[in-house]
Amino acid sequence: MQMDGAEMLGLVAGFIGAFAFAPQAIKILRTRDAADVSALTYVMVLSGAVLWAGYGVLREAPSIILWNVVAASLAALVLTLKLRKPRAA
Amino acid sequence: MQMDGAEMLGLVAGFIGAFAFAPQAIKILRTRDAADVSALTYVMVLSGAVLWAGYGVLREAPSIILWNVVAASLAALVLTLKLRKPRAA
Repeated sequence: MQMDGAEMLGLVAGFIGAFAFAPQAIKILRTRDAADVSALTYVMVLSGAVLWAGYGVLREAPSIILWNVVAASLAALVLTLKLRKPRAA
Repeated sequence: MQMDGAEMLGLVAGFIGAFAFAPQAIKILRTRDAADVSALTYVMVLSGAVLWAGYGVLREAPSIILWNVVAASLAALVLTLKLRKPRAA
């Protein structure tokens, strides 16, 4: 697989961007509190990532699909944690 | 400018993804509380967006630059709001 400087940068950017929502999910799991977290932000992140994954499918670009499936999954997790009842056992 | 279905999808995805952090910024401005918001998430979103913008520069792709500058700006705003003292006047 060909990998120039720009593609290397894209790989690192994709990795950081996709896993960015993991710390938020972990924080909510630890504190069991998500009152300050915007649900709309995560609805939009999830929608955007799903659309980007669709773009990746149309463009046959596996790395776009991969990173956006990761991002969508983590955004869906944050959204689920946010929307469940706060401080439930 | 040529615009097929995939590029149209990418445009919508880019718009939604880039402006996803606006509701979070507005929420913090309204409630003046960001205790539950993960700073690390926004450090990563910001870093990822800056790197993607760099990728856009190397690839000479204006839409990648544009959306990621918007996303980076909004992520920087959320991070600034998060890191200032809570409930300060």
